[in-house]
Amino acid sequence: MLEEAKKLGGKDSRLVVVIARDETVKMNKGRDPIFDEAMRRYMVSMLKPVDEAILGYKPPSFEKIIEKVKPDIVVFGYDQEELMEKFKRFCEEKGVRVEIRKAERYSLGRLNSSSDILKRILDMLGDKG
Amino acid sequence: MLEEAKKLGGKDSRLVVVIARDETVKMNKGRDPIFDEAMRRYMVSMLKPVDEAILGYKPPSFEKIIEKVKPDIVVFGYDQEELMEKFKRFCEEKGVRVEIRKAERYSLGRLNSSSDILKRILDMLGDKG
Repeated sequence: MLEEAKKLGGKDSRLVVVIARDETVKMNKGRDPIFDEAMRRYMVSMLKPVDEAILGYKPPSFEKIIEKVKPDIVVFGYDQEELMEKFKRFCEEKGVRVEIRKAERYSLGRLNSSSDILKRILDMLGDKG
Repeated sequence: MLEEAKKLGGKDSRLVVVIARDETVKMNKGRDPIFDEAMRRYMVSMLKPVDEAILGYKPPSFEKIIEKVKPDIVVFGYDQEELMEKFKRFCEEKGVRVEIRKAERYSLGRLNSSSDILKRILDMLGDKG
């Protein structure tokens, strides 16, 4: 997905990834993140397509992130429909002009989300008795 | 650790990472890997310091890997002492001339191995009841 996001901007683009804060993950998922925000930021920043990984605001703020990053294109994950709609309304209300795109769902096997991975781990532990 | 391995070779070096096969992980850890070998290869190949990630042989073979990669330096992980000693003996017996290094133990928080991560997940699940 990050490779695709980078391609959308062309080869001279900068891909900036906004990492959800721990408290935002907890609010959205009802559980703590496996990796804390500093670790998630570091891991994402080490990926080849990523030019910069930054932490979101507490509480999350479209306004502050847009002001900080000044993006031409904003790409949402395939499972971020709700957040994307919220962002579209924000842009209309504030007159923010950016291109908004939704990434396709990529599949590299069965493990495409932390929920898939948790399920895989529990299945493995179950197999052991 | 991969950043450090890349630095050992200098800026014009190529960092080739050998990914353990699923059956090798199972033999060494007594459990299936969380991510299969194709996924692990892909994930490692996407990291900035990595020039190439390749799968090891079935069964593992120092001889074939050395023949394929022709490395100047071979870097082992901090927890691969036993494998490194075995490789040193292999090099002495076969007259293979390579620099052998052991990476330091890096810490970016509490989660530095898949075992740490599994423990973290089990602790989280335990907290939920």
